[in-house]
Amino acid sequence: MPTPFRHRLRVRFQECDPQGVVYFARYLDYVDIALTELWRERFGSYRDMMDTGTDMVVAEANLRYRAAALFDDEVEVELSLERLGNTSMTTLGRIARDGETLVEASIRQVFITTNTRQKKPIPDALRAALEDLVVDRSHADADT
Amino acid sequence: MPTPFRHRLRVRFQECDPQGVVYFARYLDYVDIALTELWRERFGSYRDMMDTGTDMVVAEANLRYRAAALFDDEVEVELSLERLGNTSMTTLGRIARDGETLVEASIRQVFITTNTRQKKPIPDALRAALEDLVVDRSHADADT
Amino acid sequence: MPTPFRHRLRVRFQECDPQGVVYFARYLDYVDIALTELWRERFGSYRDMMDTGTDMVVAEANLRYRAAALFDDEVEVELSLERLGNTSMTTLGRIARDGETLVEASIRQVFITTNTRQKKPIPDALRAALEDLVVDRSHADADT
Amino acid sequence: MPTPFRHRLRVRFQECDPQGVVYFARYLDYVDIALTELWRERFGSYRDMMDTGTDMVVAEANLRYRAAALFDDEVEVELSLERLGNTSMTTLGRIARDGETLVEASIRQVFITTNTRQKKPIPDALRAALEDLVVDRSHADADT
Repeated sequence: MPTPFRHRLRVRFQECDPQGVVYFARYLDYVDIALTELWRERFGSYRDMMDTGTDMVVAEANLRYRAAALFDDEVEVELSLERLGNTSMTTLGRIARDGETLVEASIRQVFITTNTRQKKPIPDALRAALEDLVVDRSHADADT
Repeated sequence: MPTPFRHRLRVRFQECDPQGVVYFARYLDYVDIALTELWRERFGSYRDMMDTGTDMVVAEANLRYRAAALFDDEVEVELSLERLGNTSMTTLGRIARDGETLVEASIRQVFITTNTRQKKPIPDALRAALEDLVVDRSHADADT
Repeated sequence: MPTPFRHRLRVRFQECDPQGVVYFARYLDYVDIALTELWRERFGSYRDMMDTGTDMVVAEANLRYRAAALFDDEVEVELSLERLGNTSMTTLGRIARDGETLVEASIRQVFITTNTRQKKPIPDALRAALEDLVVDRSHADADT
Repeated sequence: MPTPFRHRLRVRFQECDPQGVVYFARYLDYVDIALTELWRERFGSYRDMMDTGTDMVVAEANLRYRAAALFDDEVEVELSLERLGNTSMTTLGRIARDGETLVEASIRQVFITTNTRQKKPIPDALRAALEDLVVDRSHADADT
Protein backbone atom coordinates (compact mmCIF):
# COMPACT_ATOMS: atom_id res chain seq x y z
CA MET A 1 0.00 0.00 0.00
CA PRO A 2 1.28 3.46 -0.85
CA THR A 3 1.64 6.19 1.76
CA PRO A 4 -1.39 8.42 1.21
CA PHE A 5 -1.21 12.19 0.89
CA ARG A 6 -2.48 13.83 4.08
CA HIS A 7 -4.05 17.22 4.67
CA ARG A 8 -5.42 18.41 8.00
CA LEU A 9 -8.26 20.89 8.28
CA ARG A 10 -10.41 22.38 10.97
CA VAL A 11 -14.21 22.05 10.75
CA ARG A 12 -15.74 25.50 10.36
CA PHE A 13 -18.89 26.64 12.13
CA GLN A 14 -20.60 27.49 8.85
CA GLU A 15 -19.97 24.01 7.47
CA CYS A 16 -22.15 22.57 10.24
CA ASP A 17 -25.91 22.31 10.10
CA PRO A 18 -28.67 22.47 12.73
CA GLN A 19 -27.85 18.88 13.72
CA GLY A 20 -24.52 20.35 14.93
CA VAL A 21 -22.46 18.25 12.53
CA VAL A 22 -20.79 18.86 9.16
CA TYR A 23 -23.49 19.06 6.47
CA PHE A 24 -23.18 15.80 4.53
CA ALA A 25 -22.39 17.40 1.17
CA ARG A 26 -19.46 19.40 2.59
CA TYR A 27 -17.28 16.28 2.89
CA LEU A 28 -16.95 16.41 -0.89
CA ASP A 29 -15.59 19.91 -0.49
CA TYR A 30 -13.05 18.53 1.99
CA VAL A 31 -11.80 15.92 -0.48
CA ASP A 32 -11.54 18.60 -3.16
CA ILE A 33 -9.62 20.92 -0.84
CA ALA A 34 -7.14 18.12 -0.11
CA LEU A 35 -6.77 17.48 -3.85
CA THR A 36 -5.79 21.12 -4.34
CA GLU A 37 -3.14 20.71 -1.64
CA LEU A 38 -1.91 17.51 -3.26
CA TRP A 39 -1.47 19.47 -6.51
CA ARG A 40 0.48 22.13 -4.63
CA GLU A 41 2.84 19.59 -3.07
CA ARG A 42 3.40 17.57 -6.20
CA PHE A 43 2.88 19.91 -9.10
CA GLY A 44 3.24 23.59 -8.16
CA SER A 45 -0.43 24.47 -7.91
CA TYR A 46 -3.82 23.68 -9.35
CA ARG A 47 -3.99 27.23 -10.71
CA ASP A 48 -0.71 26.64 -12.57
CA MET A 49 -2.18 23.55 -14.20
CA MET A 50 -5.25 25.51 -15.31
CA ASP A 51 -3.01 28.28 -16.65
CA THR A 52 -1.21 25.76 -18.84
CA GLY A 53 -4.46 24.62 -20.47
CA THR A 54 -5.41 21.57 -18.42
CA ASP A 55 -8.41 21.33 -16.18
CA MET A 56 -10.49 18.55 -14.61
CA VAL A 57 -14.19 17.83 -14.32
CA VAL A 58 -15.80 15.43 -11.91
CA ALA A 59 -17.57 12.46 -13.50
CA GLU A 60 -18.52 10.50 -10.42
CA ALA A 61 -18.50 10.84 -6.65
CA ASN A 62 -19.37 8.34 -3.94
CA LEU A 63 -19.51 8.77 -0.19
CA ARG A 64 -19.96 6.40 2.76
CA TYR A 65 -20.69 8.04 6.07
CA ARG A 66 -19.45 6.27 9.24
CA ALA A 67 -19.49 9.02 11.87
CA ALA A 68 -19.98 12.76 11.98
CA ALA A 69 -17.44 15.54 12.37
CA LEU A 70 -18.35 18.37 14.74
CA PHE A 71 -17.65 22.08 14.72
CA ASP A 72 -14.02 22.81 15.61
CA ASP A 73 -12.91 19.20 15.13
CA GLU A 74 -9.57 18.78 13.45
CA VAL A 75 -9.89 16.15 10.75
CA GLU A 76 -7.39 14.55 8.44
CA VAL A 77 -8.11 13.95 4.78
CA GLU A 78 -6.08 11.08 3.33
CA LEU A 79 -5.86 10.68 -0.42
CA SER A 80 -4.66 7.80 -2.52
CA LEU A 81 -5.46 6.87 -6.10
CA GLU A 82 -7.52 3.89 -7.06
CA ARG A 83 -6.70 4.38 -10.69
CA LEU A 84 -4.63 6.61 -12.94
CA GLY A 85 -6.13 5.95 -16.37
CA ASN A 86 -5.49 7.49 -19.75
CA THR A 87 -7.76 10.51 -19.42
CA SER A 88 -9.23 10.07 -15.96
CA MET A 89 -8.20 9.31 -12.43
CA THR A 90 -10.11 7.95 -9.44
CA THR A 91 -9.19 9.30 -6.02
CA LEU A 92 -9.92 7.54 -2.75
CA GLY A 93 -10.47 9.87 0.16
CA ARG A 94 -10.68 8.99 3.81
CA ILE A 95 -11.71 11.63 6.31
CA ALA A 96 -10.69 10.72 9.84
CA ARG A 97 -10.55 12.22 13.33
CA ASP A 98 -7.98 10.84 15.76
CA GLY A 99 -7.59 7.78 13.58
CA GLU A 100 -11.35 7.04 13.42
CA THR A 101 -12.75 6.94 9.87
CA LEU A 102 -15.65 9.37 9.52
CA VAL A 103 -16.25 9.33 5.78
CA GLU A 104 -14.91 7.34 2.84
CA ALA A 105 -15.16 8.87 -0.59
CA SER A 106 -14.15 8.21 -4.14
CA ILE A 107 -14.09 10.81 -6.90
CA ARG A 108 -13.48 10.14 -10.57
CA GLN A 109 -12.19 13.13 -12.51
CA VAL A 110 -11.63 13.52 -16.21
CA PHE A 111 -8.86 15.67 -17.63
CA ILE A 112 -9.91 18.28 -20.20
CA THR A 113 -8.38 21.01 -22.32
CA THR A 114 -9.36 24.29 -20.65
CA ASN A 115 -10.54 26.05 -23.81
CA THR A 116 -12.28 23.28 -25.71
CA ARG A 117 -13.58 21.37 -22.64
CA GLN A 118 -12.60 18.17 -24.51
CA LYS A 119 -11.10 15.11 -22.84
CA LYS A 120 -7.31 14.90 -22.97
CA PRO A 121 -4.69 12.45 -21.75
CA ILE A 122 -3.28 13.06 -18.30
CA PRO A 123 -0.12 15.16 -18.80
CA ASP A 124 3.06 13.07 -18.33
CA ALA A 125 4.51 15.32 -15.66
CA LEU A 126 1.35 15.00 -13.63
CA ARG A 127 1.25 11.24 -14.04
CA ALA A 128 4.82 10.95 -12.87
CA ALA A 129 4.10 13.16 -9.89
CA LEU A 130 1.12 11.11 -8.75
CA GLU A 131 2.07 7.53 -9.64
CA ASP A 132 3.30 6.51 -6.20
CA LEU A 133 -0.18 7.19 -4.77
CA VAL A 134 -1.83 4.49 -6.86
CA VAL A 135 -3.10 1.74 -4.56
CA ASP A 136 -2.85 -1.12 -7.02
CA ARG A 137 -0.20 -0.62 -9.67
CA SER A 138 -1.72 -3.25 -11.93
CA HIS A 139 -4.39 -0.70 -12.89
CA ALA A 140 -1.97 2.17 -13.30
CA ASP A 141 -1.71 1.92 -17.06
CA ALA A 142 -5.23 0.76 -17.90
CA ASP A 143 -7.23 2.86 -20.32
CA THR A 144 -10.32 4.87 -19.45
CA MET B 1 -42.70 3.11 -12.94
CA PRO B 2 -44.07 5.54 -10.37
CA THR B 3 -44.52 9.24 -11.11
CA PRO B 4 -41.54 10.91 -9.45
CA PHE B 5 -41.84 13.91 -7.16
CA ARG B 6 -40.62 17.03 -8.95
CA HIS B 7 -39.15 20.26 -7.62
CA ARG B 8 -37.85 23.09 -9.80
CA LEU B 9 -35.10 25.41 -8.67
CA ARG B 10 -33.01 28.18 -10.13
CA VAL B 11 -29.20 27.89 -10.09
CA ARG B 12 -27.77 30.63 -7.88
CA PHE B 13 -24.66 32.63 -8.75
CA GLN B 14 -22.96 31.65 -5.50
CA GLU B 15 -23.47 27.94 -6.21
CA CYS B 16 -21.27 28.27 -9.31
CA ASP B 17 -17.51 28.07 -9.32
CA PRO B 18 -14.77 29.70 -11.41
CA GLN B 19 -15.51 27.18 -14.19
CA GLY B 20 -18.88 28.97 -14.46
CA VAL B 21 -20.87 25.86 -13.56
CA VAL B 22 -22.51 24.53 -10.42
CA TYR B 23 -19.80 23.32 -8.03
CA PHE B 24 -20.00 19.53 -8.12
CA ALA B 25 -20.79 19.05 -4.44
CA ARG B 26 -23.79 21.41 -4.59
CA TYR B 27 -25.90 18.89 -6.52
CA LEU B 28 -26.18 16.96 -3.26
CA ASP B 29 -27.65 20.10 -1.75
CA TYR B 30 -30.18 20.17 -4.60
CA VAL B 31 -31.33 16.62 -3.92
CA ASP B 32 -31.64 17.43 -0.23
CA ILE B 33 -33.66 20.59 -0.96
CA ALA B 34 -36.05 18.55 -3.09
CA LEU B 35 -36.37 16.00 -0.27
CA THR B 36 -37.45 18.77 2.07
CA GLU B 37 -40.11 19.81 -0.44
CA LEU B 38 -41.23 16.21 -0.80
CA TRP B 39 -41.71 16.11 2.98
CA ARG B 40 -43.76 19.31 2.82
CA GLU B 41 -46.04 17.94 0.12
CA ARG B 42 -46.53 14.54 1.69
CA PHE B 43 -46.04 14.98 5.39
CA GLY B 44 -46.51 18.56 6.57
CA SER B 45 -42.87 19.55 6.84
CA TYR B 46 -39.46 18.19 7.67
CA ARG B 47 -39.38 20.46 10.73
CA ASP B 48 -42.61 18.89 11.96
CA MET B 49 -41.05 15.47 11.67
CA MET B 50 -38.01 16.60 13.68
CA ASP B 51 -40.32 18.16 16.29
CA THR B 52 -42.04 14.81 16.77
CA GLY B 53 -38.73 13.10 17.58
CA THR B 54 -37.73 11.62 14.22
CA ASP B 55 -34.73 12.71 12.20
CA MET B 56 -32.60 11.25 9.42
CA VAL B 57 -28.88 10.90 8.82
CA VAL B 58 -27.21 10.21 5.49
CA ALA B 59 -25.37 6.90 5.27
CA GLU B 60 -24.39 6.92 1.62
CA ALA B 61 -24.45 9.23 -1.37
CA ASN B 62 -23.52 8.59 -5.00
CA LEU B 63 -23.41 10.97 -7.93
CA ARG B 64 -22.94 10.54 -11.69
CA TYR B 65 -22.27 13.73 -13.61
CA ARG B 66 -23.49 13.91 -17.23
CA ALA B 67 -23.55 17.64 -18.00
CA ALA B 68 -23.17 20.86 -16.07
CA ALA B 69 -25.80 23.35 -14.92
CA LEU B 70 -24.99 27.03 -15.39
CA PHE B 71 -25.79 30.14 -13.40
CA ASP B 72 -29.46 31.12 -13.76
CA ASP B 73 -30.46 27.80 -15.32
CA GLU B 74 -33.75 26.45 -14.15
CA VAL B 75 -33.34 22.78 -13.28
CA GLU B 76 -35.78 20.12 -12.22
CA VAL B 77 -34.99 17.67 -9.44
CA GLU B 78 -36.95 14.43 -9.76
CA LEU B 79 -37.12 12.08 -6.81
CA SER B 80 -38.24 8.49 -6.61
CA LEU B 81 -37.37 5.81 -4.07
CA GLU B 82 -35.22 2.84 -4.83
CA ARG B 83 -36.03 1.29 -1.53
CA LEU B 84 -38.13 1.93 1.56
CA GLY B 85 -36.58 -0.44 4.12
CA ASN B 86 -37.26 -0.96 7.78
CA THR B 87 -35.05 1.82 9.15
CA SER B 88 -33.60 3.35 6.01
CA MET B 89 -34.65 4.57 2.59
CA THR B 90 -32.73 5.07 -0.63
CA THR B 91 -33.71 8.00 -2.80
CA LEU B 92 -32.96 8.29 -6.49
CA GLY B 93 -32.48 11.83 -7.71
CA ARG B 94 -32.30 13.06 -11.28
CA ILE B 95 -31.36 16.65 -11.95
CA ALA B 96 -32.40 17.74 -15.43
CA ARG B 97 -32.59 20.87 -17.58
CA ASP B 98 -35.15 20.93 -20.38
CA GLY B 99 -35.42 17.17 -20.19
CA GLU B 100 -31.66 16.57 -20.39
CA THR B 101 -30.21 14.63 -17.46
CA LEU B 102 -27.39 16.57 -15.84
CA VAL B 103 -26.74 14.54 -12.71
CA GLU B 104 -28.00 11.25 -11.30
CA ALA B 105 -27.77 10.71 -7.57
CA SER B 106 -28.73 8.22 -4.93
CA ILE B 107 -28.83 8.93 -1.22
CA ARG B 108 -29.41 6.40 1.52
CA GLN B 109 -30.76 7.85 4.73
CA VAL B 110 -31.29 6.17 8.08
CA PHE B 111 -34.12 7.17 10.41
CA ILE B 112 -33.12 8.03 13.96
CA THR B 113 -34.70 9.14 17.22
CA THR B 114 -33.84 12.83 17.57
CA ASN B 115 -32.66 12.67 21.19
CA THR B 116 -30.84 9.37 21.33
CA ARG B 117 -29.52 9.43 17.73
CA GLN B 118 -30.37 5.70 17.57
CA LYS B 119 -31.84 3.98 14.52
CA LYS B 120 -35.60 3.60 14.51
CA PRO B 121 -38.17 2.12 12.14
CA ILE B 122 -39.63 4.46 9.54
CA PRO B 123 -42.84 5.86 11.06
CA ASP B 124 -45.95 4.27 9.51
CA ALA B 125 -47.49 7.56 8.45
CA LEU B 126 -44.34 8.45 6.59
CA ARG B 127 -44.12 5.06 4.93
CA ALA B 128 -47.71 5.34 3.77
CA ALA B 129 -47.07 8.83 2.42
CA LEU B 130 -44.03 7.78 0.38
CA GLU B 131 -44.87 4.26 -0.77
CA ASP B 132 -46.10 5.20 -4.23
CA LEU B 133 -42.67 6.64 -5.05
CA VAL B 134 -40.91 3.28 -4.72
CA VAL B 135 -39.59 2.22 -8.12
CA ASP B 136 -39.75 -1.51 -7.57
CA ARG B 137 -42.36 -2.57 -5.06
CA SER B 138 -40.74 -5.97 -4.55
CA HIS B 139 -38.12 -4.24 -2.38
CA ALA B 140 -40.62 -2.11 -0.50
CA ASP B 141 -40.82 -4.32 2.55
CA ALA B 142 -37.25 -5.66 2.66
CA ASP B 143 -35.29 -5.09 5.84
CA THR B 144 -32.25 -2.83 6.22
CA MET C 1 -42.06 55.83 -1.28
CA PRO C 2 -41.72 53.48 -4.23
CA THR C 3 -43.16 49.99 -4.24
CA PRO C 4 -40.19 47.71 -3.57
CA PHE C 5 -39.38 44.64 -5.64
CA ARG C 6 -40.27 41.50 -3.72
CA HIS C 7 -38.85 37.99 -3.91
CA ARG C 8 -39.88 35.13 -1.63
CA LEU C 9 -37.55 32.31 -0.74
CA ARG C 10 -37.50 29.32 1.54
CA VAL C 11 -34.69 28.95 4.11
CA ARG C 12 -32.66 25.86 3.29
CA PHE C 13 -31.35 23.42 5.89
CA GLN C 14 -27.77 23.90 4.74
CA GLU C 15 -27.99 27.68 5.16
CA CYS C 16 -28.57 27.17 8.88
CA ASP C 17 -25.85 26.72 11.46
CA PRO C 18 -25.57 24.79 14.73
CA GLN C 19 -27.55 27.58 16.43
CA GLY C 20 -30.45 26.41 14.24
CA VAL C 21 -30.74 29.75 12.44
CA VAL C 22 -29.57 31.13 9.11
CA TYR C 23 -25.80 31.68 9.27
CA PHE C 24 -25.36 35.47 9.47
CA ALA C 25 -23.36 35.83 6.25
CA ARG C 26 -26.01 34.01 4.16
CA TYR C 27 -28.40 36.98 4.34
CA LEU C 28 -26.07 38.72 1.88
CA ASP C 29 -26.62 35.77 -0.43
CA TYR C 30 -30.38 36.32 -0.06
CA VAL C 31 -30.14 39.97 -1.09
CA ASP C 32 -27.98 38.98 -4.07
CA ILE C 33 -30.46 36.25 -5.11
CA ALA C 34 -33.27 38.81 -5.04
CA LEU C 35 -31.15 41.21 -7.15
CA THR C 36 -30.82 38.50 -9.80
CA GLU C 37 -34.60 38.10 -9.81
CA LEU C 38 -35.03 41.87 -10.08
CA TRP C 39 -32.78 41.78 -13.14
CA ARG C 40 -34.91 39.00 -14.63
CA GLU C 41 -38.15 40.93 -14.10
CA ARG C 42 -36.86 44.24 -15.37
CA PHE C 43 -34.07 43.48 -17.78
CA GLY C 44 -34.22 39.94 -19.19
CA SER C 45 -31.61 38.35 -17.00
CA TYR C 46 -28.36 39.04 -15.20
CA ARG C 47 -26.62 36.60 -17.53
CA ASP C 48 -27.85 38.61 -20.53
CA MET C 49 -26.33 41.74 -19.03
CA MET C 50 -23.00 39.97 -18.54
CA ASP C 51 -23.15 38.65 -22.11
CA THR C 52 -23.48 42.24 -23.39
CA GLY C 53 -20.27 43.29 -21.63
CA THR C 54 -21.58 44.77 -18.38
CA ASP C 55 -20.98 43.34 -14.95
CA MET C 56 -21.08 44.58 -11.37
CA VAL C 57 -18.77 44.33 -8.37
CA VAL C 58 -19.71 44.94 -4.77
CA ALA C 59 -17.98 47.90 -3.12
CA GLU C 60 -19.75 47.96 0.20
CA ALA C 61 -22.22 45.90 2.20
CA ASN C 62 -23.91 46.62 5.52
CA LEU C 63 -26.22 44.47 7.60
CA ARG C 64 -28.35 45.04 10.70
CA TYR C 65 -29.72 41.91 12.33
CA ARG C 66 -33.07 42.20 14.16
CA ALA C 67 -34.26 38.60 14.40
CA ALA C 68 -33.24 35.21 13.05
CA ALA C 69 -34.78 33.15 10.26
CA LEU C 70 -35.14 29.42 10.91
CA PHE C 71 -34.89 26.38 8.68
CA ASP C 72 -37.93 26.07 6.43
CA ASP C 73 -39.13 29.62 7.10
CA GLU C 74 -40.47 31.42 4.08
CA VAL C 75 -38.96 34.89 3.99
CA GLU C 76 -39.54 37.86 1.74
CA VAL C 77 -36.68 39.94 0.41
CA GLU C 78 -37.73 43.49 -0.47
CA LEU C 79 -35.45 45.63 -2.58
CA SER C 80 -35.50 49.34 -3.25
CA LEU C 81 -32.69 51.65 -4.35
CA GLU C 82 -31.17 54.27 -2.12
CA ARG C 83 -29.23 55.71 -4.99
CA LEU C 84 -28.77 55.24 -8.72
CA GLY C 85 -25.53 57.12 -9.37
CA ASN C 86 -23.43 57.50 -12.50
CA THR C 87 -21.42 54.29 -12.20
CA SER C 88 -22.77 52.75 -9.01
CA MET C 89 -26.03 51.96 -7.31
CA THR C 90 -26.94 51.36 -3.67
CA THR C 91 -29.61 48.79 -2.95
CA LEU C 92 -31.62 48.63 0.25
CA GLY C 93 -32.70 45.16 1.22
CA ARG C 94 -35.17 44.13 3.87
CA ILE C 95 -35.59 40.49 4.77
CA ALA C 96 -38.88 39.83 6.54
CA ARG C 97 -41.00 36.93 7.77
CA ASP C 98 -44.75 37.49 8.10
CA GLY C 99 -44.17 41.23 8.01
CA GLU C 100 -41.51 41.19 10.76
CA THR C 101 -38.17 42.65 9.72
CA LEU C 102 -35.36 40.15 10.31
CA VAL C 103 -32.44 41.83 8.60
CA GLU C 104 -31.83 45.19 6.93
CA ALA C 105 -29.05 45.42 4.39
CA SER C 106 -27.52 47.86 1.97
CA ILE C 107 -25.20 46.93 -0.86
CA ARG C 108 -23.31 49.34 -3.08
CA GLN C 109 -22.36 47.92 -6.47
CA VAL C 110 -20.19 49.45 -9.17
CA PHE C 111 -20.81 48.78 -12.84
CA ILE C 112 -17.83 47.54 -14.83
CA THR C 113 -16.95 46.49 -18.37
CA THR C 114 -16.72 42.69 -18.28
CA ASN C 115 -13.40 42.42 -20.13
CA THR C 116 -11.43 45.35 -18.77
CA ARG C 117 -12.95 45.29 -15.24
CA GLN C 118 -13.02 49.13 -15.47
CA LYS C 119 -15.84 51.28 -14.10
CA LYS C 120 -18.48 52.27 -16.61
CA PRO C 121 -21.69 54.34 -16.51
CA ILE C 122 -24.88 52.46 -15.75
CA PRO C 123 -26.39 51.54 -19.15
CA ASP C 124 -29.39 53.73 -20.01
CA ALA C 125 -31.77 50.83 -20.50
CA LEU C 126 -30.92 49.54 -17.05
CA ARG C 127 -31.31 52.94 -15.44
CA ALA C 128 -34.72 53.35 -17.05
CA ALA C 129 -35.75 49.90 -15.88
CA LEU C 130 -34.79 50.55 -12.25
CA GLU C 131 -35.57 54.23 -11.73
CA ASP C 132 -38.97 53.75 -10.09
CA LEU C 133 -37.30 51.80 -7.26
CA VAL C 134 -35.25 54.79 -6.10
CA VAL C 135 -36.41 55.85 -2.64
CA ASP C 136 -35.52 59.51 -2.91
CA ARG C 137 -35.47 60.84 -6.46
CA SER C 138 -33.37 63.87 -5.52
CA HIS C 139 -30.36 61.54 -5.46
CA ALA C 140 -31.23 59.76 -8.68
CA ASP C 141 -28.92 61.80 -10.89
CA ALA C 142 -26.07 62.44 -8.45
CA ASP C 143 -22.59 61.36 -9.47
CA THR C 144 -20.61 58.51 -7.92
CA MET D 1 -2.23 50.71 18.42
CA PRO D 2 -2.46 47.12 19.66
CA THR D 3 -0.92 44.20 17.78
CA PRO D 4 -3.84 42.57 15.98
CA PHE D 5 -4.57 38.86 16.08
CA ARG D 6 -3.60 37.25 12.77
CA HIS D 7 -4.91 34.14 11.05
CA ARG D 8 -3.82 32.99 7.60
CA LEU D 9 -6.09 31.00 5.32
CA ARG D 10 -6.04 29.71 1.78
CA VAL D 11 -8.85 30.72 -0.61
CA ARG D 12 -10.81 27.60 -1.59
CA PHE D 13 -12.06 26.90 -5.10
CA GLN D 14 -15.66 26.58 -3.92
CA GLU D 15 -15.54 30.00 -2.24
CA CYS D 16 -14.98 31.61 -5.65
CA ASP D 17 -17.73 32.53 -8.08
CA PRO D 18 -17.94 32.64 -11.89
CA GLN D 19 -16.05 35.97 -11.81
CA GLY D 20 -13.10 33.88 -10.54
CA VAL D 21 -12.90 35.75 -7.24
CA VAL D 22 -14.10 35.10 -3.70
CA TYR D 23 -17.88 35.55 -3.57
CA PHE D 24 -18.43 38.83 -1.70
CA ALA D 25 -20.42 37.34 1.17
CA ARG D 26 -17.70 34.79 1.99
CA TYR D 27 -15.40 37.44 3.46
CA LEU D 28 -17.76 37.53 6.44
CA ASP D 29 -17.10 33.81 6.82
CA TYR D 30 -13.37 34.57 6.83
CA VAL D 31 -13.70 37.10 9.66
CA ASP D 32 -15.80 34.60 11.61
CA ILE D 33 -13.23 31.83 11.07
CA ALA D 34 -10.50 34.10 12.40
CA LEU D 35 -12.66 34.92 15.43
CA THR D 36 -12.90 31.21 16.21
CA GLU D 37 -9.11 30.97 16.04
CA LEU D 38 -8.78 34.02 18.28
CA TRP D 39 -10.99 32.25 20.83
CA ARG D 40 -8.79 29.17 20.61
CA GLU D 41 -5.61 31.16 21.22
CA ARG D 42 -6.98 33.23 24.07
CA PHE D 43 -9.73 31.22 25.65
CA GLY D 44 -9.47 27.50 24.97
CA SER D 45 -12.06 27.25 22.24
CA TYR D 46 -15.33 28.70 21.06
CA ARG D 47 -16.98 25.34 21.70
CA ASP D 48 -15.78 25.46 25.32
CA MET D 49 -17.40 28.87 25.71
CA MET D 50 -20.68 27.54 24.33
CA ASP D 51 -20.46 24.52 26.65
CA THR D 52 -20.23 26.85 29.64
CA GLY D 53 -23.46 28.61 28.71
CA THR D 54 -22.25 31.64 26.77
CA ASP D 55 -22.82 32.25 23.09
CA MET D 56 -22.79 35.22 20.72
CA VAL D 57 -25.13 36.53 18.06
CA VAL D 58 -24.23 39.02 15.36
CA ALA D 59 -26.07 42.34 15.54
CA GLU D 60 -24.32 44.25 12.77
CA ALA D 61 -21.81 43.63 10.00
CA ASN D 62 -20.17 46.07 7.60
CA LEU D 63 -17.80 45.43 4.71
CA ARG D 64 -15.72 47.66 2.42
CA TYR D 65 -14.29 45.92 -0.63
CA ARG D 66 -10.96 47.23 -2.00
CA ALA D 67 -9.66 44.37 -4.14
CA ALA D 68 -10.57 40.76 -4.80
CA ALA D 69 -8.95 37.57 -3.55
CA LEU D 70 -8.50 34.78 -6.09
CA PHE D 71 -8.63 31.00 -5.85
CA ASP D 72 -5.57 29.61 -4.08
CA ASP D 73 -4.46 33.00 -2.75
CA GLU D 74 -3.15 32.96 0.78
CA VAL D 75 -4.76 35.77 2.72
CA GLU D 76 -4.27 37.08 6.20
CA VAL D 77 -7.17 38.04 8.43
CA GLU D 78 -6.22 40.61 11.07
CA LEU D 79 -8.53 41.22 13.99
CA SER D 80 -8.59 43.99 16.53
CA LEU D 81 -11.45 45.28 18.69
CA GLU D 82 -13.06 48.63 18.21
CA ARG D 83 -15.02 48.25 21.38
CA LEU D 84 -15.44 45.85 24.27
CA GLY D 85 -18.73 47.00 25.80
CA ASN D 86 -20.80 45.58 28.62
CA THR D 87 -22.73 42.99 26.64
CA SER D 88 -21.36 43.43 23.11
CA MET D 89 -18.08 43.76 21.29
CA THR D 90 -17.21 45.23 17.91
CA THR D 91 -14.46 43.52 15.95
CA LEU D 92 -12.48 45.17 13.18
CA GLY D 93 -11.31 42.78 10.50
CA ARG D 94 -8.81 43.42 7.75
CA ILE D 95 -8.30 40.84 5.04
CA ALA D 96 -5.02 41.32 3.22
CA ARG D 97 -2.83 39.60 0.64
CA ASP D 98 0.89 40.34 0.69
CA GLY D 99 0.22 43.44 2.77
CA GLU D 100 -2.46 44.81 0.40
CA THR D 101 -5.83 45.39 2.04
CA LEU D 102 -8.57 43.51 0.17
CA VAL D 103 -11.52 43.92 2.49
CA GLU D 104 -12.23 45.84 5.69
CA ALA D 105 -14.99 44.61 7.94
CA SER D 106 -16.56 45.31 11.28
CA ILE D 107 -18.83 42.95 13.15
CA ARG D 108 -20.76 43.74 16.30
CA GLN D 109 -21.65 40.71 18.39
CA VAL D 110 -23.84 40.48 21.48
CA PHE D 111 -23.18 37.97 24.24
CA ILE D 112 -26.10 35.77 25.22
CA THR D 113 -26.92 32.97 27.64
CA THR D 114 -27.03 29.80 25.54
CA ASN D 115 -30.32 28.49 26.93
CA THR D 116 -32.37 31.63 27.32
CA ARG D 117 -30.93 33.52 24.32
CA GLN D 118 -30.94 36.64 26.57
CA LYS D 119 -28.19 39.26 26.58
CA LYS D 120 -25.57 38.84 29.27
CA PRO D 121 -22.43 40.71 30.31
CA ILE D 122 -19.18 39.63 28.68
CA PRO D 123 -17.62 37.06 31.06
CA ASP D 124 -14.68 38.55 33.00
CA ALA D 125 -12.21 35.91 31.88
CA LEU D 126 -13.05 36.64 28.27
CA ARG D 127 -12.76 40.38 28.74
CA ALA D 128 -9.36 39.95 30.33
CA ALA D 129 -8.23 37.70 27.50
CA LEU D 130 -9.25 40.17 24.78
CA GLU D 131 -8.57 43.57 26.33
CA ASP D 132 -5.19 44.14 24.73
CA LEU D 133 -6.81 43.97 21.27
CA VAL D 134 -8.96 47.05 21.87
CA VAL D 135 -7.84 49.84 19.53
CA ASP D 136 -8.84 52.75 21.72
CA ARG D 137 -8.84 51.97 25.43
CA SER D 138 -11.02 54.97 26.25
CA HIS D 139 -13.98 52.97 24.92
CA ALA D 140 -13.02 49.78 26.71
CA ASP D 141 -15.36 50.24 29.63
CA ALA D 142 -18.24 52.05 27.92
CA ASP D 143 -21.67 50.48 28.19
CA THR D 144 -23.60 48.87 25.32
